[in-house]
Amino acid sequence: MTDKPKVAVVGYGTIGQRLADGVTLQEDMELVGIVDVAPTLALRALYESGMSYDLYLVDPLHKPEFNDLGIPVSGTFEELLEQVEVVLDATPAGIGAKNRELYEEHGVKAIFQGGEKSEVADVFFHGYANYEKGIGQNFLKLTSCNTTGLIRAVDAIDREVGVEKVAITIIRRVADPGDTHRGLVDLLKVDPVPNHQAVDLMNIMPHVDATGFLVHTPITHGHIISIVATPKKSIDKKTLLDVFRAHPRIRVVRIADGFNSNTSLFQYARFLGNKRADMYEIAVWEECIGSSGDDILFAINIPQEAVTIPETIDGVRACLSMQMDRLEAVGLTNKYLKMKAGR
Amino acid sequence: MTDKPKVAVVGYGTIGQRLADGVTLQEDMELVGIVDVAPTLALRALYESGMSYDLYLVDPLHKPEFNDLGIPVSGTFEELLEQVEVVLDATPAGIGAKNRELYEEHGVKAIFQGGEKSEVADVFFHGYANYEKGIGQNFLKLTSCNTTGLIRAVDAIDREVGVEKVAITIIRRVADPGDTHRGLVDLLKVDPVPNHQAVDLMNIMPHVDATGFLVHTPITHGHIISIVATPKKSIDKKTLLDVFRAHPRIRVVRIADGFNSNTSLFQYARFLGNKRADMYEIAVWEECIGSSGDDILFAINIPQEAVTIPETIDGVRACLSMQMDRLEAVGLTNKYLKMKAGR
Amino acid sequence: MTDKPKVAVVGYGTIGQRLADGVTLQEDMELVGIVDVAPTLALRALYESGMSYDLYLVDPLHKPEFNDLGIPVSGTFEELLEQVEVVLDATPAGIGAKNRELYEEHGVKAIFQGGEKSEVADVFFHGYANYEKGIGQNFLKLTSCNTTGLIRAVDAIDREVGVEKVAITIIRRVADPGDTHRGLVDLLKVDPVPNHQAVDLMNIMPHVDATGFLVHTPITHGHIISIVATPKKSIDKKTLLDVFRAHPRIRVVRIADGFNSNTSLFQYARFLGNKRADMYEIAVWEECIGSSGDDILFAINIPQEAVTIPETIDGVRACLSMQMDRLEAVGLTNKYLKMKAGR
Amino acid sequence: MTDKPKVAVVGYGTIGQRLADGVTLQEDMELVGIVDVAPTLALRALYESGMSYDLYLVDPLHKPEFNDLGIPVSGTFEELLEQVEVVLDATPAGIGAKNRELYEEHGVKAIFQGGEKSEVADVFFHGYANYEKGIGQNFLKLTSCNTTGLIRAVDAIDREVGVEKVAITIIRRVADPGDTHRGLVDLLKVDPVPNHQAVDLMNIMPHVDATGFLVHTPITHGHIISIVATPKKSIDKKTLLDVFRAHPRIRVVRIADGFNSNTSLFQYARFLGNKRADMYEIAVWEECIGSSGDDILFAINIPQEAVTIPETIDGVRACLSMQMDRLEAVGLTNKYLKMKAGR
Repeated sequence: MTDKPKVAVVGYGTIGQRLADGVTLQEDMELVGIVDVAPTLALRALYESGMSYDLYLVDPLHKPEFNDLGIPVSGTFEELLEQVEVVLDATPAGIGAKNRELYEEHGVKAIFQGGEKSEVADVFFHGYANYEKGIGQNFLKLTSCNTTGLIRAVDAIDREVGVEKVAITIIRRVADPGDTHRGLVDLLKVDPVPNHQAVDLMNIMPHVDATGFLVHTPITHGHIISIVATPKKSIDKKTLLDVFRAHPRIRVVRIADGFNSNTSLFQYARFLGNKRADMYEIAVWEECIGSSGDDILFAINIPQEAVTIPETIDGVRACLSMQMDRLEAVGLTNKYLKMKAGR
Repeated sequence: MTDKPKVAVVGYGTIGQRLADGVTLQEDMELVGIVDVAPTLALRALYESGMSYDLYLVDPLHKPEFNDLGIPVSGTFEELLEQVEVVLDATPAGIGAKNRELYEEHGVKAIFQGGEKSEVADVFFHGYANYEKGIGQNFLKLTSCNTTGLIRAVDAIDREVGVEKVAITIIRRVADPGDTHRGLVDLLKVDPVPNHQAVDLMNIMPHVDATGFLVHTPITHGHIISIVATPKKSIDKKTLLDVFRAHPRIRVVRIADGFNSNTSLFQYARFLGNKRADMYEIAVWEECIGSSGDDILFAINIPQEAVTIPETIDGVRACLSMQMDRLEAVGLTNKYLKMKAGR
Repeated sequence: MTDKPKVAVVGYGTIGQRLADGVTLQEDMELVGIVDVAPTLALRALYESGMSYDLYLVDPLHKPEFNDLGIPVSGTFEELLEQVEVVLDATPAGIGAKNRELYEEHGVKAIFQGGEKSEVADVFFHGYANYEKGIGQNFLKLTSCNTTGLIRAVDAIDREVGVEKVAITIIRRVADPGDTHRGLVDLLKVDPVPNHQAVDLMNIMPHVDATGFLVHTPITHGHIISIVATPKKSIDKKTLLDVFRAHPRIRVVRIADGFNSNTSLFQYARFLGNKRADMYEIAVWEECIGSSGDDILFAINIPQEAVTIPETIDGVRACLSMQMDRLEAVGLTNKYLKMKAGR
Repeated sequence: MTDKPKVAVVGYGTIGQRLADGVTLQEDMELVGIVDVAPTLALRALYESGMSYDLYLVDPLHKPEFNDLGIPVSGTFEELLEQVEVVLDATPAGIGAKNRELYEEHGVKAIFQGGEKSEVADVFFHGYANYEKGIGQNFLKLTSCNTTGLIRAVDAIDREVGVEKVAITIIRRVADPGDTHRGLVDLLKVDPVPNHQAVDLMNIMPHVDATGFLVHTPITHGHIISIVATPKKSIDKKTLLDVFRAHPRIRVVRIADGFNSNTSLFQYARFLGNKRADMYEIAVWEECIGSSGDDILFAINIPQEAVTIPETIDGVRACLSMQMDRLEAVGLTNKYLKMKAGR
């Protein structure tokens, strides 16, 4: 018998698969099972590769489909809710809000992803920037992938020299690999200013003024954000790089070494042998730092599929009051995910 | 007999075709002929559509190829140089520098495109920003497509309230339509900071501090630039829009009207019936203007194939001293190209 | 007063714009007006470029929007129907079926585009392959863009040597330029065999056996179809090329001349100065003809935006019994569209 | 001490990385080391992930670069050649021919990849189709990725019912993920008929007549080939599927299950946790099989990065005469790579 906190992952898609793996790596948590609806490619692959997680079904009417494929089913969504303390809800946007009622009914806490409306949660959460606000809360909502990575970088500078304001340009991947339900061809789609990421940043970091422009581009392997930040105290390039290198969730890379694109980081993760070529870290390009008067200009890479995993796990630590100290909490998440400074 | 200045276009590619048409529209200039090497698609189309320009050949050895196709040849490159006062050199990067010797030999002035090294010319030229510097000079070099459009916008603000500094993010189309010799697939390629466009802007507008980041994207129909500018005097959104609307080479558009991408402007030019779907104007999105403290954030669209045509024609006016006044000169170019304020 | 047949175009989108221009070029037809709903980019451009067509509105409630923009409105959809004999319905798929009732009510004939269900029409029509079937009919449905081009080529061979069967591979553009509501990124989406184009070909040419595979690709400037055809009598490459060259709606091109992609044909149409870079002709690549035993392999390019225009105009000739002879009818369409053999 | 055959992999790029892993999985072979030139991303990742292979350098002058990065170097290319019996040469096209001299000098056998000219080798090799020809030879050249996968499928049918002729349409990915030196944007580039894959197929299977058309498309995750095959005896769809399902290197998939694109197979490999999302198997879509008279039409997916690994390892078995029987040889390769029928 274990007295580790028991966790469920609901929705075994792009984010859910990665959350399941991430929680499993945390030596002080236990993943009890995952929940999904139908025999997706992700579940077929889970089965073909040895069924490392117990599967629970939203709708028992789908059980015969799984039986036909030989995929074992451990029970229903509600049966899983009886066994856990916290749910990581990685369902498609809008479903989380409906699930919340179920979680309340079963007395289970939940952490929602960035796609949900903010009303779904008590706290809009980022592990590094506002860990304290999440402590003991029942329902957290994570920042979206771009906002999570953006805040990592801005929070790091803010804690060093203070940040007065930021103006960001997001060059966004429009679809994940394999998506056939969305996409763009030979065009850059523009969104109105300000984008939600700037607004969300101000929600999490209310002392920073932010605005931003967003362009959707026909690529799949990671967003790039260009950031013009006005620091409260002047900061030179070397110090800025030191701040980034000291951050376990930021990787400083060089174009000269071959990191010449967003996809180069995806490829590097493939070469590392990371499962699914996942990368938790955002990257900063050493050669892409400039100054405009006292303002600094720099660019980050956001690996959209995996970047929110560490902060979501931080959320488990916060809502279950596993650690009361921000740095202790994120430090444990990092340790179990094998993330460390100096990359 | 005419006493209009006589002009030749050398290189009938992406830029050359458009220069030939643009010069032809100028009622106070005469296009004597165009120069190219081999029977490209552009020349085959010129022939199929009625041979509206006289063709001169760089190398007479290629003449039999043209004869076989029935394409008439009016003479050699050097024969054309004897008939003109100024050449618009739109040859591939690097050739212009070689051609300069020939121009000097024949006592012909020349205007080079942005791809050439700056050393090729006496003045780095932009019709709106530094017309006066080009007056009477023998060799001008135009700014590149991105820089030309960028300076149009920044110069307009600068003349209204002054600009202290700009930090730009260029989201660049990586190839023109039909290019098979370059391209990118599913990636955003990053360049070191600062990009040459920021450096070039400071060359033309030395009183403005500039830096910038550039990302190459797999699209063909126009670059987008996001600009964070620090004005010397505060300027509100309405005034900024008035400044842009008053500029004959800037078109203010709205996402709400359907201008939701770079390609929407290409499509609009197709719908207008513009030859080759050319658009001389840069566009500014009304909904993509924001403020970050006193800084302003806005975004422009650069139709890379045609955007430099007006400023190149301004260059003819300058180097031949056709007009001594900047606004008179650009005004005539605009009039003949049917560009006007309020779009 | 004129006694030319009076035509309306309903829906001024991708196809409708081109139909309006195509009908206008026919010296023996009169375009009375076009119909649309809201001030799209196409209508804004029509207005900015001089309002060459009279505009009628589906819903008078939208009239104030047009008034605000200064775009003149000539009346309502139903008012237009009172003035014409035939409607070219280029509305989004599904709307045509609803409009048919209106057409019946007003005693107007109609030609629908390929996106509509076949039930909408009395005859599934192709100008070259089954002109006779459309004569005097009230409601025709055109083949879709791919099928129209495919049948042009197969019908040409069939009339020369007979065709027993074809197996086609369609490499399909997934979106038109500027589309933001559909697209794919970095993937080839596959459809089940047989594709509808093979089935449609057998509908129009019931004596030919056909099957086919279709792949959606992330491009916008034209489909490519690879065709393996089994002729009834052996046909060599030279004869096949002669057949294609003799067809006014087929253009034989060479990779060696620069026609090395689908987009090269779009570019060529730009260079020709064709409005919107339209091309009515399909292209056949001279170097892409091969033989597999007695079977022939060849590839065609389908310019999806404009390819159906000639056959739709043939449809007007058929349903109004303007010509009773197939070759006389298509010949007049070709003459007015300036299409001729030998390209 | 081991008496397993000793193998080196020269060139640690896209193919070399996968060959190193594939050989390591073979329990009856020993990978002694890998060779490369400079600290590429692949070598940096090898180091960051624990340096599982010994690295030898082509040019000792580069050693200080590796020293600076802390990457251990085990010796020189020539020192490695002294320790092995066979080299898998995965260097860029053209280098292999130069390396061959070195291999001869050191008395080492070598297997070259498909990019090399055929003259580099004694035998043009495919594990399933002509294993016997490679036995005991010194220099083999593998078929390219498309040809390797194509022959797998055609050979399987040929051994069942005989194949008279094939006409193929290759829809080719134009770049690998991360490539910045090649690519296409918004176009389908066409190659002359016949493509080299059809010619190569006839080289390996001289009793089959083949032709083919190839289109380059702007995608990265796998080629798709559409095949029209004329069998010597009629074969129905069910039998064809049985043949494919019985083949350990062919995976039969269904669009209905979510395998709706080439990228869906890449994604599935990610979900399986395969290193770098590698997939050795070609896929056949169950819904994409059709018939055209007695001819069959079907489509296969070629995962270009990993597909040649099994056949290359078969080549080691052949050239070292490890197995004299084709099926015993490929069976061992499959067993160690965990490939099995029925997928």
